[in-house]
Amino acid sequence: MNTIPLPQEMIVQLENIVGQSFLFLDIETRTHYGHDETEDYSFPPSVVVKPANTQEISEIMKLANTHKIPVVPIGARTGLSGGALSIHGGIGLSTERLNSIVIGEKNLQGIVGPAAITQEFQEAALAKGLFYPPDPSSRGSCTIGGNVAENAGGARAVKYGVTKDYVLNLEVVLPTGEIIETGANTLKNSTGYNLTQLMVGSEGTLGVITKIVMKLLPKNSHNVLMLVPFFKSEQACEAVAAIFRAGIVPSALEFMERDAIDWGVRFLGSVQLDIKDDIQAHLLIEVDGNYPDVLFAEAEKIMGVVEQFAIDEVLFADTEDQKNALWKLRRVVGEAVKSNSIYKEEDTVVPRYELPVLLKGVKAIGNKYGFKSVCYGHAGDGNLHVNIIKGDMTDAMWQNEVPKGIREIFELTVSLKGTLSGEHGIGYVQKNYMDIAFSNHHLQLMKGIKTLFDPNNILNPGKILPDKL
Amino acid sequence: MNTIPLPQEMIVQLENIVGQSFLFLDIETRTHYGHDETEDYSFPPSVVVKPANTQEISEIMKLANTHKIPVVPIGARTGLSGGALSIHGGIGLSTERLNSIVIGEKNLQGIVGPAAITQEFQEAALAKGLFYPPDPSSRGSCTIGGNVAENAGGARAVKYGVTKDYVLNLEVVLPTGEIIETGANTLKNSTGYNLTQLMVGSEGTLGVITKIVMKLLPKNSHNVLMLVPFFKSEQACEAVAAIFRAGIVPSALEFMERDAIDWGVRFLGSVQLDIKDDIQAHLLIEVDGNYPDVLFAEAEKIMGVVEQFAIDEVLFADTEDQKNALWKLRRVVGEAVKSNSIYKEEDTVVPRYELPVLLKGVKAIGNKYGFKSVCYGHAGDGNLHVNIIKGDMTDAMWQNEVPKGIREIFELTVSLKGTLSGEHGIGYVQKNYMDIAFSNHHLQLMKGIKTLFDPNNILNPGKILPDKL
Repeated sequence: MNTIPLPQEMIVQLENIVGQSFLFLDIETRTHYGHDETEDYSFPPSVVVKPANTQEISEIMKLANTHKIPVVPIGARTGLSGGALSIHGGIGLSTERLNSIVIGEKNLQGIVGPAAITQEFQEAALAKGLFYPPDPSSRGSCTIGGNVAENAGGARAVKYGVTKDYVLNLEVVLPTGEIIETGANTLKNSTGYNLTQLMVGSEGTLGVITKIVMKLLPKNSHNVLMLVPFFKSEQACEAVAAIFRAGIVPSALEFMERDAIDWGVRFLGSVQLDIKDDIQAHLLIEVDGNYPDVLFAEAEKIMGVVEQFAIDEVLFADTEDQKNALWKLRRVVGEAVKSNSIYKEEDTVVPRYELPVLLKGVKAIGNKYGFKSVCYGHAGDGNLHVNIIKGDMTDAMWQNEVPKGIREIFELTVSLKGTLSGEHGIGYVQKNYMDIAFSNHHLQLMKGIKTLFDPNNILNPGKILPDKL
Repeated sequence: MNTIPLPQEMIVQLENIVGQSFLFLDIETRTHYGHDETEDYSFPPSVVVKPANTQEISEIMKLANTHKIPVVPIGARTGLSGGALSIHGGIGLSTERLNSIVIGEKNLQGIVGPAAITQEFQEAALAKGLFYPPDPSSRGSCTIGGNVAENAGGARAVKYGVTKDYVLNLEVVLPTGEIIETGANTLKNSTGYNLTQLMVGSEGTLGVITKIVMKLLPKNSHNVLMLVPFFKSEQACEAVAAIFRAGIVPSALEFMERDAIDWGVRFLGSVQLDIKDDIQAHLLIEVDGNYPDVLFAEAEKIMGVVEQFAIDEVLFADTEDQKNALWKLRRVVGEAVKSNSIYKEEDTVVPRYELPVLLKGVKAIGNKYGFKSVCYGHAGDGNLHVNIIKGDMTDAMWQNEVPKGIREIFELTVSLKGTLSGEHGIGYVQKNYMDIAFSNHHLQLMKGIKTLFDPNNILNPGKILPDKL
């Protein structure tokens, strides 16, 4: 990886923009901002800056564009595809000071800075009787800006959609320093090309997001949560499509393989579950709404569906504490699996009905290449997180054989009309698999868009697009 | 307007692609395909072709790109912004033979050709227990391809979103003839730049849509429909935001000024309504779901809200026939207003709460410039259709003064954080107002995208972007 050196004069100019106390050259700070939650990568920026506002970010971009120095926008560094890694060094631009949250009750909108923590935004909305549904597992630490950049999903996407479905308008600083609003603060918009949705999911490569206008919903007052143990993993997957075909849209429908739930229980230490030895997987199913009677009726319908498969006794979470414990367990699974071994996580997504085929295929490919995988994820969306575990595999196997297996997994997802990433983004680690999903002409169009917005390729370079293009 | 002449050799080449019986040079056919529902414009293409499939469309595009001849994709010509008008002549490409509808029950998806009629797609989905919510007033004649191109909305957008929220994947023929799929058939996707949403709402300027993969929902079994007469128009607008703030999300929330409903009743002839003389406006409100008790409870809550304003007796539609009659009335209002006079329709949209300010402003601007307007639309979305009536205004006033008034109306919408078009698109008639909503730099980015996809500017040229750029 080539790291572009930063001219000394530029440090002074940056300091003039952000002030001395918001520019950092020390190795501790740079290392801190040089990693995220993606495997064990470390790519420290040459300098870290923490601008106060949109105007300062605009000045930084103009300066960087003049000197052709890379800038990487950095949020909470909870990303799983390496999107915030400063792989070419340069300026690490932390947006952390832009963390305001304003709830517009009159229009059911939230106006937030990119560094607003997702959970804090959700709670601010709830306090006004409003609901921001997107709910990534990392919501306690991830930020709305990062959620927008990666088009994050989470457990409630199955009923409520992903981040992109809530973004109405964005204020963005372009790589050349211009500030634009991508759209309008309206629920509908057919006015020119949709730059809002082009920016969502562009992983900080087309602009620095400085303000987000989000749609909010009236909050729901009730929910019912149940945990269903399946004796066969594939039947758990089959049950997912069956629930929808019965006319139910759950507010969450999560799949966990046995290892995932066991490792989660062990990692947490605080949850007790009595699981039979021959249970292979669980579905965690939630329905929500304002009328308890309706929810009980829906839960009964769901029971009618899952009882057609080989299941053990269903656990209904009766209290808020029980619900919180089950959700905590689900949220911690990723961290638990990762604490166990070196790993690579793939964010496969297929049409919902193909989930059993995908799961079976992943296991067969693992057998072929000699790796174990732990799978869990948002089954209602067909979104399966495949965690490939290094365990006691040799380094040579890990480096040379596993990528071949990953390629086969992605080829399988694409053959099922799915794709590489449902909600984590492509970033640094999946970019060289992009040829599986897209033709060269298609990738050239994406590259053309990148060049149009960022003619000097300074904003988060080396992400999304494959190296050879 | 410059019309580019078509070389004779090209006619032969086109005939070789589509076959003699699907190429038309006669003036009747060309005139027929030379207008839509936008004012009284007529821009016939030089030739009309009706290709059979994606491959033929690709060959047509390659040919046109080589000869640098304009191609205008033509759907059902129900558009209200002139998007399908062949303003530079050239090839009128009717997609009407690509009208297949496949309902994928297993994945709750529909796979349709661009020429599938919206209502037929809805009915095909319903027959399988599924629901396609977007519901433009012209659904009986408009096509899904046109809906995608314009990002059409309709009455149910307020609860269920617009066309863009259902499009999962598109097959598209690019202006250079390449065929791509923009995304994957999945509910979530964070894999590269979102070309699906760039294509949606691009009004046939970036590619010819040849196949659409749509998300479907389980159908709802029940709904409640009520018509609320208000003594003051602005109070009707105020009630809209109040309903949402009471925690209700209606499945439709339509606003009609007195003239709109009167003209609709007269135009239809079949609906009897007993409306007091001093009623200024109506709200048509629907809630839907699977549990009648819940819907009655929600209807009661809505009554509690609207009764805080000066209203007359609320009409509940008790039977399917009554519901259909009210919806027919609402759907026909546009046509009724247009049958009455030469008109210009503006598709203004603002944040919901600003609707009373917009309505008041539109009337004040009308008074200033001497025009009458009839307003109606999807008030739940803040989307107000402003029909400016020529009546007995002089041609000079109509040509010179009215556009100044329209500019002021758009300036008002933008100042309220709204924009020019909620669901009709910019097309031919609004393009020279785009500078109100966007900076020059922003428009240059849009132009850059157009040039990237269509380097010879042959696909639907002269639309969306202002003449001077």
